[in-house]
Amino acid sequence: MTTKTNPGNFFEDFSLGQEIVHATPRTVTEGDTALYTALYGSRFAAPSSDMFAMSLGYEGAPVDDLLVFHVVFGKSVPDISLNAVANLGYAAGRFGGAVYAGDTLRAVSRVIGLKENSNGKTGVVYVHTVGLNQRDEPVLEYVRWVMVNKKDPASPAPEPVIPDLDPFVGEKELMVPEGLDLSSYDTALSGSDLMWGDYEVGDRIDHVDGMTIEEAEHMMATRLYQNTAKVHFNQHTQGQGRFGRRIVYGGHVISLARSLSFNGLANAFHIAAINGGSHVNPTFAGDTIYAWSEVLGKLSVPGRDDLGALRLRTVATKVQNCASFPDRDGNGKPDPAMVLELDYAVLIPK
Amino acid sequence: MTTKTNPGNFFEDFSLGQEIVHATPRTVTEGDTALYTALYGSRFAAPSSDMFAMSLGYEGAPVDDLLVFHVVFGKSVPDISLNAVANLGYAAGRFGGAVYAGDTLRAVSRVIGLKENSNGKTGVVYVHTVGLNQRDEPVLEYVRWVMVNKKDPASPAPEPVIPDLDPFVGEKELMVPEGLDLSSYDTALSGSDLMWGDYEVGDRIDHVDGMTIEEAEHMMATRLYQNTAKVHFNQHTQGQGRFGRRIVYGGHVISLARSLSFNGLANAFHIAAINGGSHVNPTFAGDTIYAWSEVLGKLSVPGRDDLGALRLRTVATKVQNCASFPDRDGNGKPDPAMVLELDYAVLIPK
Amino acid sequence: MTTKTNPGNFFEDFSLGQEIVHATPRTVTEGDTALYTALYGSRFAAPSSDMFAMSLGYEGAPVDDLLVFHVVFGKSVPDISLNAVANLGYAAGRFGGAVYAGDTLRAVSRVIGLKENSNGKTGVVYVHTVGLNQRDEPVLEYVRWVMVNKKDPASPAPEPVIPDLDPFVGEKELMVPEGLDLSSYDTALSGSDLMWGDYEVGDRIDHVDGMTIEEAEHMMATRLYQNTAKVHFNQHTQGQGRFGRRIVYGGHVISLARSLSFNGLANAFHIAAINGGSHVNPTFAGDTIYAWSEVLGKLSVPGRDDLGALRLRTVATKVQNCASFPDRDGNGKPDPAMVLELDYAVLIPK
Repeated sequence: MTTKTNPGNFFEDFSLGQEIVHATPRTVTEGDTALYTALYGSRFAAPSSDMFAMSLGYEGAPVDDLLVFHVVFGKSVPDISLNAVANLGYAAGRFGGAVYAGDTLRAVSRVIGLKENSNGKTGVVYVHTVGLNQRDEPVLEYVRWVMVNKKDPASPAPEPVIPDLDPFVGEKELMVPEGLDLSSYDTALSGSDLMWGDYEVGDRIDHVDGMTIEEAEHMMATRLYQNTAKVHFNQHTQGQGRFGRRIVYGGHVISLARSLSFNGLANAFHIAAINGGSHVNPTFAGDTIYAWSEVLGKLSVPGRDDLGALRLRTVATKVQNCASFPDRDGNGKPDPAMVLELDYAVLIPK
Repeated sequence: MTTKTNPGNFFEDFSLGQEIVHATPRTVTEGDTALYTALYGSRFAAPSSDMFAMSLGYEGAPVDDLLVFHVVFGKSVPDISLNAVANLGYAAGRFGGAVYAGDTLRAVSRVIGLKENSNGKTGVVYVHTVGLNQRDEPVLEYVRWVMVNKKDPASPAPEPVIPDLDPFVGEKELMVPEGLDLSSYDTALSGSDLMWGDYEVGDRIDHVDGMTIEEAEHMMATRLYQNTAKVHFNQHTQGQGRFGRRIVYGGHVISLARSLSFNGLANAFHIAAINGGSHVNPTFAGDTIYAWSEVLGKLSVPGRDDLGALRLRTVATKVQNCASFPDRDGNGKPDPAMVLELDYAVLIPK
Repeated sequence: MTTKTNPGNFFEDFSLGQEIVHATPRTVTEGDTALYTALYGSRFAAPSSDMFAMSLGYEGAPVDDLLVFHVVFGKSVPDISLNAVANLGYAAGRFGGAVYAGDTLRAVSRVIGLKENSNGKTGVVYVHTVGLNQRDEPVLEYVRWVMVNKKDPASPAPEPVIPDLDPFVGEKELMVPEGLDLSSYDTALSGSDLMWGDYEVGDRIDHVDGMTIEEAEHMMATRLYQNTAKVHFNQHTQGQGRFGRRIVYGGHVISLARSLSFNGLANAFHIAAINGGSHVNPTFAGDTIYAWSEVLGKLSVPGRDDLGALRLRTVATKVQNCASFPDRDGNGKPDPAMVLELDYAVLIPK
């Protein structure tokens, strides 16, 4: 009699170039988008309204970009990070065509880098993950790297390969969802008249509001994404662990920060790229999340004069508001209130 | 560099006759209605069942009236009540045509009254808010008035204008959703055989059951309605405030009371009017809500002999059941257990 | 003035052969299925993906079998078990045709047994409940028996009738949803390549993971099913009762156990029968649920060589993992960690 359960992959189970088809394809529905609204209170007009979205050239309200991200990411967890010691980083995240309610998403990952750590007990695995819809069109791709346990410290180390990753997605690689035309963009309905031209590199925006997280909320979110990482769900074991608490899925904090960023970035209607991110400190239920953003760059989108992109860095903090823009100090040491920094690009009308 | 965030409107920002188009139109979906059921457990047959609703002449299950109310109300919060010191009252609430999943709602308010308070620091703003669907048909209108801070106590007071409001919506103004025909109303499926003729003015009904509120529930509800009032969400600041707690959105209590009222009013299939309401005491997570109702009036609906209306007053209490009908005393002082009283009209088959 | 509220049925209110049409028909939507995913994190591919389900011959993603069960069961609560002292058992549960989002379910029960207890204060009522869709096709039937209070201990006892119930649903009675053809079943997308032939009678599978329950979660679930049993919702009265706590709906634990069982039974794509079940101990918010399963039998499905059935017994425990397979001892006394045992049959590809 065999175990019959999935133990997850260990460092030795990964090989360079290996392709992993992730299980449980997922039809994203209006039910998922309603839950997303209930969990984060997002007010961006396009994902909220079929009519507004169609006025921009969408077929209907697009599924929130981060909901797409969480679903695709969740698919990869049982294969990539079930035995992960740490989620080390993201890069080269790029959204493709719009996702609509009714679309079915699946995910495939390819191993693009491997490096055993000098302790011989763990290694770093780099994967390139693609989310595809039912027509096999990419809706999202990104690279992430995780530190994974070895099954056996004695097993030989693979040839180290570290992929060469750009620090951010350049303006030529940003994809604009098909059919968009922002010429009749309605700033009364969108909630702000601040357009691309109103933002300058170096602008810092305090998003003002704070949102307290409950256990039921982050667990419902993380299950909605079919993300199986154990640390989010099991108080029985977590209570005996380092923090004594369940840890909130980092993506939950990303979505909260994005939702809070509406106040100051209401016209940033689409996330086009995720350049990188870091979960600086763990977040727990009971924490109140605040956020602020900095404009890192202004990007032109080739062939478009109705929209541009902003490269943003959004910082989320816990149990401290962002009026003073808590940040890393001169040595790169993060303010202890910081829980997230995310480097990403948004589309915004001109 | 400007702030770029929305500070909300202060008393000086409002002018008589001013029209305010609220942001973030909202397509209401089957996801929203499922969440509404999960949050309140409502058992009224029409919003629960396409088949039952169609047997009454609806096109399908109508979106619960109070979900429509909360969505329209939520739209108006960032413009009307972000700096409100108090929500003082509602009047003249009237539901229009039925809302179905897939309809997109937006809201527009007009300032119909202004009166600075004698302290010179605050003023009362009266707005008439209309919720419209994607065909610009009104689905709901109501008047509410809020006390708002002045930005500058030295700024001059406007000419005081207080709108003349009827105490309740009269039977000629009640709207019956188009196409309704209750001749084949099924009382086995509706859950009760008590019809319009079975209720008398003065009847008092204890709705028996109690429902305890959790933080995750009222926050998910309030975010679902995209209501941004800070007091509901931020334990970090609320913990330092007067109550030390997040305050439950008053509309959440209204929906709980309506859901509990099924036991005794199962055939009150549609709310046609909201005449007024008062959140007598704040509600917090952990409170158990009970409700009782009094029949204030029996209204005929012009041209209809298949249905009539009841004017009801529903009282909700916390942490005390309603077997003894907790109420205001002879001086109008509310029982300390009371959290809500709502004066409204329901349609019910004859 | 009468009470106008439903007091529920007492033992004297039931008579042999009586048919009870339950109130509040329910259109099951994509909103309900999204909430179901958020509540339990189920990863079975067919209910998760339209595309995967259609590759098996379904018209689209079928509604999770247990969501169908909970909705049908919930309908019966106000009539059958509002005054129940105990839910004593289930038997002869059999799923019919697939349910899809948009289908409207209603429930009808027939009294098939009655037996007054020797104390003269309570009696046992046996009902056969059928869930029907909008085309009056059965989607589920089961027998359950409950102990109900008598209104008046002096009222005469009925002739005792105890129905003759098979210990489990035989292979000839198992229904396979119409149109299924598993010849192109994709084991990469389903998450496991273990098929019917890989399981042996006596196999025991530890499903490894644990899931902690929150108050908001079990109450949202139970309201979603429009189940009105008071013990789940009212902390004010429960706090004064035997446990001092709200009790989690037993079906919530069944759904958690089924969701956890994906790890080891990923290809058990459909529950075809529920042979019996017992809620061995009450579950409360804060409890962490684990599960393990035993293969009780391997059943052939007449006329099918693409699929077979497994008769399973799944045990759920709280605050103890299942690595040691906690079970009843030689005298049938359950391990104190056990909260559920469920005897049921699943379909699985050959």
